[in-house]
Amino acid sequence: MALIVQKFGGTSVGSIEKIKAVASRVLESHRAGNRMIVVLSAMSGETDRLIGMAHEMQHIPDPRELDALVSTGEQVTVSLFAMAVKAAGGDAVSLLGDQVAIHTDQMHTRARIDSIDAARIQHFLDQGKIVTVAGFQGVTDSGDITTLGRGGSDTTAVALAAALKADACEIFTDVEGVFTTDPGICDKARKIDFISYDEMLELASLGAKVLDIRAVSMAKRFKVPVHVRSTFTHTVGTWVVGEEKIMESMLVSGITYSKKEARITIKKVPDQPGIAAKIFLPISDAGILVDMIIQNAHDGGFTDMTFTVPKDDYARAMEILNKVAKELHAESVTGDQDIAKVSIVGVGMRNYAGIASTMFQIMSKEGINMMMVTTSEIKVSAVIAAKYTELAVRALHDAFALDKDNLPQEED
Amino acid sequence: MALIVQKFGGTSVGSIEKIKAVASRVLESHRAGNRMIVVLSAMSGETDRLIGMAHEMQHIPDPRELDALVSTGEQVTVSLFAMAVKAAGGDAVSLLGDQVAIHTDQMHTRARIDSIDAARIQHFLDQGKIVTVAGFQGVTDSGDITTLGRGGSDTTAVALAAALKADACEIFTDVEGVFTTDPGICDKARKIDFISYDEMLELASLGAKVLDIRAVSMAKRFKVPVHVRSTFTHTVGTWVVGEEKIMESMLVSGITYSKKEARITIKKVPDQPGIAAKIFLPISDAGILVDMIIQNAHDGGFTDMTFTVPKDDYARAMEILNKVAKELHAESVTGDQDIAKVSIVGVGMRNYAGIASTMFQIMSKEGINMMMVTTSEIKVSAVIAAKYTELAVRALHDAFALDKDNLPQEED
Repeated sequence: MALIVQKFGGTSVGSIEKIKAVASRVLESHRAGNRMIVVLSAMSGETDRLIGMAHEMQHIPDPRELDALVSTGEQVTVSLFAMAVKAAGGDAVSLLGDQVAIHTDQMHTRARIDSIDAARIQHFLDQGKIVTVAGFQGVTDSGDITTLGRGGSDTTAVALAAALKADACEIFTDVEGVFTTDPGICDKARKIDFISYDEMLELASLGAKVLDIRAVSMAKRFKVPVHVRSTFTHTVGTWVVGEEKIMESMLVSGITYSKKEARITIKKVPDQPGIAAKIFLPISDAGILVDMIIQNAHDGGFTDMTFTVPKDDYARAMEILNKVAKELHAESVTGDQDIAKVSIVGVGMRNYAGIASTMFQIMSKEGINMMMVTTSEIKVSAVIAAKYTELAVRALHDAFALDKDNLPQEED
Repeated sequence: MALIVQKFGGTSVGSIEKIKAVASRVLESHRAGNRMIVVLSAMSGETDRLIGMAHEMQHIPDPRELDALVSTGEQVTVSLFAMAVKAAGGDAVSLLGDQVAIHTDQMHTRARIDSIDAARIQHFLDQGKIVTVAGFQGVTDSGDITTLGRGGSDTTAVALAAALKADACEIFTDVEGVFTTDPGICDKARKIDFISYDEMLELASLGAKVLDIRAVSMAKRFKVPVHVRSTFTHTVGTWVVGEEKIMESMLVSGITYSKKEARITIKKVPDQPGIAAKIFLPISDAGILVDMIIQNAHDGGFTDMTFTVPKDDYARAMEILNKVAKELHAESVTGDQDIAKVSIVGVGMRNYAGIASTMFQIMSKEGINMMMVTTSEIKVSAVIAAKYTELAVRALHDAFALDKDNLPQEED
């Protein structure tokens, strides 16, 4: 008898009828002999509605009160879901974050899970009940309600799977799984059957929205097998598992892109120790996350510094940089918002050289200039002009044969 | 420095703007130097909306899950209210039933309060915060959310006032206080300044909707002074207090009426011991509350039994009675839904005879037939044809001079 955690997002439980459909789907798994824990998000639109009310009430809503307010969204779905299961002839019980209890730190609106009591869930599972847990929420030691931040229900599901030693954590969503790239711009995009935690982490942080990055990193730590699949079909989706579980890794597993960043260059600053800190401290003090950084030294003791920031923070970052440039007597500050970051990800890269250079060749063949490049052990990212995004993604997808199994070839 | 509990109902907190208005009203009292506990209901319409969803989900919603669902209504208002107070420059903290904690029994949807922990509220009051508590909800020993039934927020407020030994419990509503009768049908109706717990209990159980009967009975037990007043004006409302606090009691304090009952007569049943049980047991087993009962013995060992039931249960009661009548060989079962119950209430009746007979004279003078009469120490109720309701109320209001102080006259 397997223990399975299933998580359904807001669109999957967006109406009375959809909650009923989820209930009968969960009952299927339960009647097949599985012990079931079901994590639910708020009905789609509800969290935004509640946050909207909060902002009407207070310019910057009090975080503790905001959490108490917003957590009602999941409370509504889990109690309705338990009713739906009972109406369909099953037995279910709903538990809120504090009823489980899911202990978190006190960082309201983006709390981290410290520990989970398994006892109460176990008790209800032993009674044969389907246990439905409100996603996204927890409780502090002093009994205050916390929330885990956007995407927090994924984290709840994986954390419960880890705490209860579940056999699998299934994340139901509106797509069929993780794809080699966005099917919206590349019709050869293919569903990936197995992907490693590390690859999924890179994909998630590079813009794939299918799974929350914190959930993936928790799944990796506790070795929770995660199954990303569709609410609306019974097709097998994508399994996110340890690398050792994947017989043969693809050279490149996925290609992602993001148009959410902007590029800033500060030109001809004195190339001396501590210069990077002088430039980036004021930016991080303003709460702006810098992603890629490239330093380009000139002759004569000067250097150019190029980096990317989220487009939403572009104006503020430019303002700060113009001040800094004056202090440092830099030549100029220039910026570009019409950029995209295209990345290739695959654990196969670890052992095979030449992936990056293949990528560069393809880009060059298509006449696409790469403005910045960064690499990690299992990914290569390039910043290009935004207008080439789709072209680059399709060309890379073809070149690395992501529409087929692209197993690494012996090098000699 | 007085400690005051203020309770605002659903219409008082029915929108963002109204919650802001309540917040500034509460802040006024706080800045005047009072320690404040504020009990709030759900925004008007919200509880019905949630119950509606539950019924779409399950024919008879699971009571535990229904409580978890419905309690979100108050959770939303208290957190929004705390934000509103903070936005207006004050300091507030919201507490849910389980956070206080308000311990109840396990009777979901109509739980009773067993005890209240004063410590956490006291802690926040000592910090100078306005403590806002979700009305209507509590928690069982096993951590399940319960609700106290309709009107439960009044009970929450009075219970908190009792537990924290508050100086007053103010119930804010959309009327100016308790009136001598319904101003809608009698333009001489007058706001009552002081009324005793016992009179208020009678008025509440006889149909006055201004205050929940359980709240009144709890206020009486713990001697909590209750102030019923309007959300929309600063006028002093009605104080509900112990009889000993009222210098001079009115002979008759109020006149109420109810059109929610129906009358049933079962004719010529054998007048033998146990006959009442045979008639009323099947009715109470069906969960139907019988109010007035009159037994009228005939010659020859027979008796008629007349009683009232809620109109909503009339059809079911008639069905049951027809069966019972057959078994008992009764002559017939007749019913009448076009009735009203008109009552006069006043502690002054205790010491002064002749109140009932004055009432009978007035009814007779107006040509109104009384079908049933019951009396208690401080009230007289009469069942009359529904069409005479307004006439009866106005005539009694005049006769007992409720538009003026009707202090008892010395009898000799």
